[in-house]
Amino acid sequence: MERTILDYETVSLDEENKALVIIDQTKLPGTIEILSLTDIEDIWDAIYLLKVRGAPAIGVAAAIGIYVVSERFDAECTDMFCREFHNAKDYLETSRPTAVNLFWALDRMEEVVSSNMDKSVAEIKRLLHDEAVQIHDEDIEVCRKIGIYALELVKPGDGLLTHCNAGQLATVKYGTATAPMYLGKEQGYGFHIFVDETRPLLQGARLTAFELQAAGMDVTLICDNMSASVMKKGLVQAVFVGCDRVAANGDTANKIGTSVVACVAKQYGVPVYVCAPTSTIDMTLKSGAEIPIEERPAEEITEMWYRERMAPEGVKVFNPCFDVTDHELIAGIVTEYGVVKAPFEKNLELMLKVNDTANRTDH
Amino acid sequence: MERTILDYETVSLDEENKALVIIDQTKLPGTIEILSLTDIEDIWDAIYLLKVRGAPAIGVAAAIGIYVVSERFDAECTDMFCREFHNAKDYLETSRPTAVNLFWALDRMEEVVSSNMDKSVAEIKRLLHDEAVQIHDEDIEVCRKIGIYALELVKPGDGLLTHCNAGQLATVKYGTATAPMYLGKEQGYGFHIFVDETRPLLQGARLTAFELQAAGMDVTLICDNMSASVMKKGLVQAVFVGCDRVAANGDTANKIGTSVVACVAKQYGVPVYVCAPTSTIDMTLKSGAEIPIEERPAEEITEMWYRERMAPEGVKVFNPCFDVTDHELIAGIVTEYGVVKAPFEKNLELMLKVNDTANRTDH
Repeated sequence: MERTILDYETVSLDEENKALVIIDQTKLPGTIEILSLTDIEDIWDAIYLLKVRGAPAIGVAAAIGIYVVSERFDAECTDMFCREFHNAKDYLETSRPTAVNLFWALDRMEEVVSSNMDKSVAEIKRLLHDEAVQIHDEDIEVCRKIGIYALELVKPGDGLLTHCNAGQLATVKYGTATAPMYLGKEQGYGFHIFVDETRPLLQGARLTAFELQAAGMDVTLICDNMSASVMKKGLVQAVFVGCDRVAANGDTANKIGTSVVACVAKQYGVPVYVCAPTSTIDMTLKSGAEIPIEERPAEEITEMWYRERMAPEGVKVFNPCFDVTDHELIAGIVTEYGVVKAPFEKNLELMLKVNDTANRTDH
Repeated sequence: MERTILDYETVSLDEENKALVIIDQTKLPGTIEILSLTDIEDIWDAIYLLKVRGAPAIGVAAAIGIYVVSERFDAECTDMFCREFHNAKDYLETSRPTAVNLFWALDRMEEVVSSNMDKSVAEIKRLLHDEAVQIHDEDIEVCRKIGIYALELVKPGDGLLTHCNAGQLATVKYGTATAPMYLGKEQGYGFHIFVDETRPLLQGARLTAFELQAAGMDVTLICDNMSASVMKKGLVQAVFVGCDRVAANGDTANKIGTSVVACVAKQYGVPVYVCAPTSTIDMTLKSGAEIPIEERPAEEITEMWYRERMAPEGVKVFNPCFDVTDHELIAGIVTEYGVVKAPFEKNLELMLKVNDTANRTDH
């Protein structure tokens, strides 16, 4: 039987502890190609060329990647090993300098080395292995818990809408916004899922529709400007989206278009839930206004993907990568510790305090 | 000097009364190609293949087209001429059976023939010429008046946003939603105009951005999912859109995505104005719920324009061509007789009554 995307984790360590194994996302949805990467240059390339993408998946790939590479270091003394490790880390950090999770994961791995300088090289390698595996396993567990809490917000047969890819392909397994969909599928919820294609990079069409369809779900692809049509027909009972950063007041930065969906959902009385691992919550940001928004090249809108240019030569283009959804448009923020509702400032702080994870993004 | 799109009317009669002259819109924005059509098959093709598109422009093209063709009829007696005319009309009506304006314009031309059966063939040909020219001139005048009224709703330096192409390329001149932009340009208003690319057929990117840029306006192209980003920044003071049909209560059917823009505009306090020739107002429809919404092929979303398929094989697709904007989201309907505000049912009826144009779509 032909293997599907679901037969693979997005990012994993091979059984012999020798390779970082990833699904090459640049080949989707046309081809499922699994890459086994052992050399640091290939791992760097995979992150740089977006063969692995999605904040959580990048972090896990970096952790497993630097472990796999360090396992083969020649160094016989700890000092030498430590130097080699730092060089590798510095190099990998240049692969995607804006990805917070890349730094977060490599810092966690480095901490293992620096806090065990009294141990043997073999012992440090073993500890690095364990840390990489733990980062990998934690990612699955965080997504699974988000899925459990999110699933309580909907009921069997509901129509769900999602935007971009906060799916399994952005994490190790389950995804964030898609976690309730995967868990619901396991439990026979029979959701009807609408996926925004997500211009300009089409992550919804290429990745989300692809992975949910492969999982056997009822998926309908729409353009980003069709959300009002499906909501007005009463076909959507909840919107689940991922996030890049959540500010203290609940304002949420996510893929461009998320706030458009949220405005439409408000008009039609559909609740919008942001699926957010606590690592994305940044209480040092007072509001979304403090979140910098990356702008990307005009060509993504005017030329990319197309057989010919689809806009007049020289036209000005505004291409922000993210937008900020006003907290008043958000019905709940679903974390691995539960669902946080308004007032967000108070309730996010309480949730983080109770679970002692405050400022996990402060590394 | 190279000629620009503005040197041509979208649809016109050549000076020798022998040809329907159009801009081939299937070649835009890459090439400006002007077609002179004299044979009925070529005129049929031009409408069928969307070389001429936009409700008003199709009507004018049909009127001029059937005049040009009938000018060359061999018939020497009125009866014979009448038969030839009906055959031509029946044939042209099959070129775009869903276009209301196609039937409206051809019916007006037919009325000229049937109410002048006592006249000579030469005389009827002269009257057909005058009617075609009048339909053409009326279109310009209606758009110009819409522009004058719409311009009163904004001020110099404003940011304006439009969706799809309700521009000059959809009419003879000025367009409907773009009429205030062209008139404002003439008067030095210095607008900053944001154009939604308008998936899946990209009329915003290919046509609207193109014609407004050619007119020397400050145009910025955005994806449909970026409207919230520009409105939240305070860059948009008014939204102008066209319409396909307006119901008695003000609900408006227009290109898919219009109601998404309207939901976003509501969130950010930006007024939405629908530019509607009274010919598009249909008081026989109680609300937008009675307007049928055409669905189009999945391939427009998954394959068209692209170098390769951008969605998984076999995925379900929902591709409605229009959506209905709730009247509560509309700040005003701009007609050739002035701006109509809520309550729409009462005020539309009053406006039509005063101007004696009620039910012009009832033909």
